Amino acid sequence: MTEQVGLGPGAPVLAADVGGTETKIGVVDESGHIGPPVRVPTPPGDPDTPTAILKTISEAARDLPGFDRVEAVGVALPGVFDEDREVGVWSENLGWRDVDFGSLVREHFRLPAVCAHDVRAAALAELRLGAARGLRDVAVLTVGTGIAAAIFVDGRPHVRGGYAGEIGHVVVDPAGEPCPCGNRGCLEATASAAAIARRYGKASGEAVTGAREVLERARSGDRAAKMIWSSAVDALASGIAHLSAAMAPQAIVVGGGLSEAGEDLFGPLQVGVDARFRLRPTRLSRARLGEDAGVIGAAIGARECAIPSRGREGGPRP
Amino acid sequence: MTEQVGLGPGAPVLAADVGGTETKIGVVDESGHIGPPVRVPTPPGDPDTPTAILKTISEAARDLPGFDRVEAVGVALPGVFDEDREVGVWSENLGWRDVDFGSLVREHFRLPAVCAHDVRAAALAELRLGAARGLRDVAVLTVGTGIAAAIFVDGRPHVRGGYAGEIGHVVVDPAGEPCPCGNRGCLEATASAAAIARRYGKASGEAVTGAREVLERARSGDRAAKMIWSSAVDALASGIAHLSAAMAPQAIVVGGGLSEAGEDLFGPLQVGVDARFRLRPTRLSRARLGEDAGVIGAAIGARECAIPSRGREGGPRP
Repeated sequence: MTEQVGLGPGAPVLAADVGGTETKIGVVDESGHIGPPVRVPTPPGDPDTPTAILKTISEAARDLPGFDRVEAVGVALPGVFDEDREVGVWSENLGWRDVDFGSLVREHFRLPAVCAHDVRAAALAELRLGAARGLRDVAVLTVGTGIAAAIFVDGRPHVRGGYAGEIGHVVVDPAGEPCPCGNRGCLEATASAAAIARRYGKASGEAVTGAREVLERARSGDRAAKMIWSSAVDALASGIAHLSAAMAPQAIVVGGGLSEAGEDLFGPLQVGVDARFRLRPTRLSRARLGEDAGVIGAAIGARECAIPSRGREGGPRP
Repeated sequence: MTEQVGLGPGAPVLAADVGGTETKIGVVDESGHIGPPVRVPTPPGDPDTPTAILKTISEAARDLPGFDRVEAVGVALPGVFDEDREVGVWSENLGWRDVDFGSLVREHFRLPAVCAHDVRAAALAELRLGAARGLRDVAVLTVGTGIAAAIFVDGRPHVRGGYAGEIGHVVVDPAGEPCPCGNRGCLEATASAAAIARRYGKASGEAVTGAREVLERARSGDRAAKMIWSSAVDALASGIAHLSAAMAPQAIVVGGGLSEAGEDLFGPLQVGVDARFRLRPTRLSRARLGEDAGVIGAAIGARECAIPSRGREGGPRP
């Protein structure tokens, strides 16, 4: 976690952030303290994945201090996710379509529960406790394995069936790499942390561990690395400029793995956005809550759906 | 007017749509009938332009049947316009910055009045009476002399200081033509009706009357005309794809002069948008109210600010 945050007093809750490869699970206690989440592998994509994920979460949670007292559950989920119906509309990585996660989670845990999109959960955490604190009109862009924005209008998430903010699937390079959405050269297939590593591997013939290594190679003068890094920053700048012009947000917060590049990303990104949209300055900020933002956002959601009148002294959970 | 519309029973109002070269003025009577607006030249850009515009409107209005009974005034204004403060933030064409039009209009007419952005006024008309009727999440893109979108979220205009929807000022071609915003190769400088005519004139050395003539030449096989038309459609498709991905609107309505090209625009535009964003289908619709949409939208706004308890039998206006 980049910054240590607390949620303040409230119901103890269980929170999980389901990623394409790893699931993070944490318990928030009555004081609002959230310890470092445990990480377990996400079960691979098959028809039973949704149920397997919930089993994985409750098995890992059993060992966490305070689990027996949790009063609500929050789960953040990847892909296209519709919070209004709590339905996982589509996940290419985990292989599901139209899964009613809301009902599954409530049946599994027999507790009040809320399901959210991982990107909007992380964004909610930034809005309440991080880089977007106090703002009402803001876009929080996550650039990690994928690229998506969470958009808040007047403090409320703009969801629209789970499709709002899916700017990662706009084509920026028609001759580019294939994208899980079925298209080619999408922003996500060009500029996500995963795409940067993949594209460099293809261009150089050398496998790298991730975008961080591509950046290090670019810094030491590797031409292919420099070219791929700067084309990724250009593509992101274009996507952000379009978003800024459309929404006129108070700020655009950029998080996810790529944001850890710091000034190597934010310096040229701000220059690129300003060059592409001059009418109104775009305020770019770096996300503050780091990789645990999704768990924190799920915990905030769980806190809000816990039954307020419930005593805090209930016995152990069956 | 492409389609004859009525506003239904209500207060008689005066409505004006101030354009860069021409101002349209109409009176809506108690039955909601709006006749064809009169058109007068907009006074040229100088420090007195705002006052001169109001004089022009009231002089032209004096001859319109029913003017002596109007109970409220609506004025649609170009440039960057902030409805929340009723301030004209910036108009390059008419040379103003930060003009308090709300106060000016109320003082001039001594009536309840509302000032609105021309693009959002036209969009409001499409939302209530035209192509976006019944929709709550919609973008209405006007492609005429300029390019801007009016964005409605949950039925409410998304204004944000007047800057929301200014997608015409995102660069689509860094080597492109200069734009009034100070940048180069903006969507507006590439794909507006005015830009299409200007760019064709420059490429061919032959002056044309407008984008319509460029389209006619493209149809008869003129290479420069075909190239410029299709680059404009591509640029619009890109802007619309970004807007669709960000907002996930129920529809994107396209109006303004260029929309009169009909299928020559909407056919390739839909193909271009779908090629650039496949995750969720983008529903494109053609605006229905034609060039009088701004006046109709201003009249709708005026109707809403008329004092409802006022008698409909008042004497003539001084």
